[in-house]
Amino acid sequence: MKIELTEVAPRDGLQSLPEPVPVGTKIELVRRAANAGFRRVEVTSFVSPRAVPQLADAEAVLAGLAGLNTVTLEALVPNLRGAERVARTAVQDWVCFLSASESHSQANANCSVTEALARIEPVIDLARRCNRTPVAAIATAFGCPFEGIIPVSQTMRLVLALRDRGIRRIKFGDTIGTATPRQVHELAEQLKDKAPEIQPVLHLHDTRGLALPCVLAGINAGFTRFESSIGGIGGCPFAPGATGNVASEDLVHFLHAEGHDTGIDLAALIDTGRWLEGQLGRPLPARMLRVSPIGTTVPLPDGLRARG
Amino acid sequence: MKIELTEVAPRDGLQSLPEPVPVGTKIELVRRAANAGFRRVEVTSFVSPRAVPQLADAEAVLAGLAGLNTVTLEALVPNLRGAERVARTAVQDWVCFLSASESHSQANANCSVTEALARIEPVIDLARRCNRTPVAAIATAFGCPFEGIIPVSQTMRLVLALRDRGIRRIKFGDTIGTATPRQVHELAEQLKDKAPEIQPVLHLHDTRGLALPCVLAGINAGFTRFESSIGGIGGCPFAPGATGNVASEDLVHFLHAEGHDTGIDLAALIDTGRWLEGQLGRPLPARMLRVSPIGTTVPLPDGLRARG
Repeated sequence: MKIELTEVAPRDGLQSLPEPVPVGTKIELVRRAANAGFRRVEVTSFVSPRAVPQLADAEAVLAGLAGLNTVTLEALVPNLRGAERVARTAVQDWVCFLSASESHSQANANCSVTEALARIEPVIDLARRCNRTPVAAIATAFGCPFEGIIPVSQTMRLVLALRDRGIRRIKFGDTIGTATPRQVHELAEQLKDKAPEIQPVLHLHDTRGLALPCVLAGINAGFTRFESSIGGIGGCPFAPGATGNVASEDLVHFLHAEGHDTGIDLAALIDTGRWLEGQLGRPLPARMLRVSPIGTTVPLPDGLRARG
Repeated sequence: MKIELTEVAPRDGLQSLPEPVPVGTKIELVRRAANAGFRRVEVTSFVSPRAVPQLADAEAVLAGLAGLNTVTLEALVPNLRGAERVARTAVQDWVCFLSASESHSQANANCSVTEALARIEPVIDLARRCNRTPVAAIATAFGCPFEGIIPVSQTMRLVLALRDRGIRRIKFGDTIGTATPRQVHELAEQLKDKAPEIQPVLHLHDTRGLALPCVLAGINAGFTRFESSIGGIGGCPFAPGATGNVASEDLVHFLHAEGHDTGIDLAALIDTGRWLEGQLGRPLPARMLRVSPIGTTVPLPDGLRARG
């Protein structure tokens, strides 16, 4: 099956680091992702530089990506001020964040879910006037650190509210790594039933090892769009215990092993993960940076017959 | 669904450690697994003490387990000499190891697959005469370090040979962690079609993060028996790159999250993993020793409204 992947390390991953990385490293990371075959990259956030100093160089990153025509660029746009900044760049998809749970909405955005919906309306309006695409990302779509498991019905209420505001592409964020294959299956069924016009994107965390089982269940249920992060860097810094974006290397390796078509060159992707480890100066969580892909062989030890 | 789990840390896990652990620790590990709810435990191996000094205390371990009536004890029995030893113990299930690939058979047992089949015949005979159950374990059932991906048809040839020798329970070993959901599905279909009398057990390694996806695919295809190792310890020491038995803590957490019935007390299991970390003096790979189970909540930070 043809699977569409979005690389999120430049925004989601680098935002989680304690220190900003140089703008040149960010630009090279996006270009390497593009060269490995990604056609969508979440590149930065137009959030206040005081709130997220790691991404204060959004305009400089985008200036450095001029001419990168093979990739749909995405960026987070938290409010109208951010929208006015992103409108002056080449970012096509403007991503508005909300939470499915009230507690996480308060902790992350200091407002209720209803207030968050109202806040994104001017962003959606400006995106339309600028011929850009407003996209929604629902955090805690499956579970919340403060409220526990989030019922699919609760997430679906937000989906319908977003659809009614004209949103067609929605990212479902497994913010604390608690999504289960059952939940993913139920969400797919509800979407088909109640909001078939929505293009859903699954953003899974591998905190408890459930990201790839959820990908498998998601594909079986009809999802074809997933997000991942090179090296497995990133998570939501406002959610306790929220580590572990599924690594792009592990996701692509899995999808290829299952016979799916991602358009990604796994070897180039693993090279990029190793390069990023060098840039960040530490080993990254992606398993495929440690072990060889399925099908790799080693020589039989000396003195043994190759065939019995 | 009702799922039957076999705990393999006492044999498969401890065999992989560089140094033997005290016999008392082994006995307590089995008893803790039983107390957590396991009804099957692979306790030791009746291999030559020179070949595997880590398990040289097989008889002493079994003496220490006298009276443990809730558990079906399994042990590896590599040859007739081992069978004569195990016959004097309470081990019910005698596990004979073979490889699906010729190269691994040579590397692991220094004989061809055909020779390995001949070697286990006297073990099967003695098991029958002693009213014990001969069980087969097929290593490299999905992939081989020397030959790469093993076709399901190749593994099935060995299944049919074992069935014709009266074997009914077969463990399928994902020795180097390369099993994929597609392979697991195909194996299930072939077993239903060609050897429906076989009770298959899936033994998966999480080396590339594919163990839980394979469990999901396996359950969807009809598998109900799985093996795992407390803490995630163990692997095949003769296969390069073979680390990562799926951790019992992670498997049970996943199965419960999916609504299955394992009979295991997850909290007691996690306690046992932490106890084993203390005994071995190092952190173990099980993810659920690091993070809280799905549904755990933390308090909302002070100053935020719990509901918006």
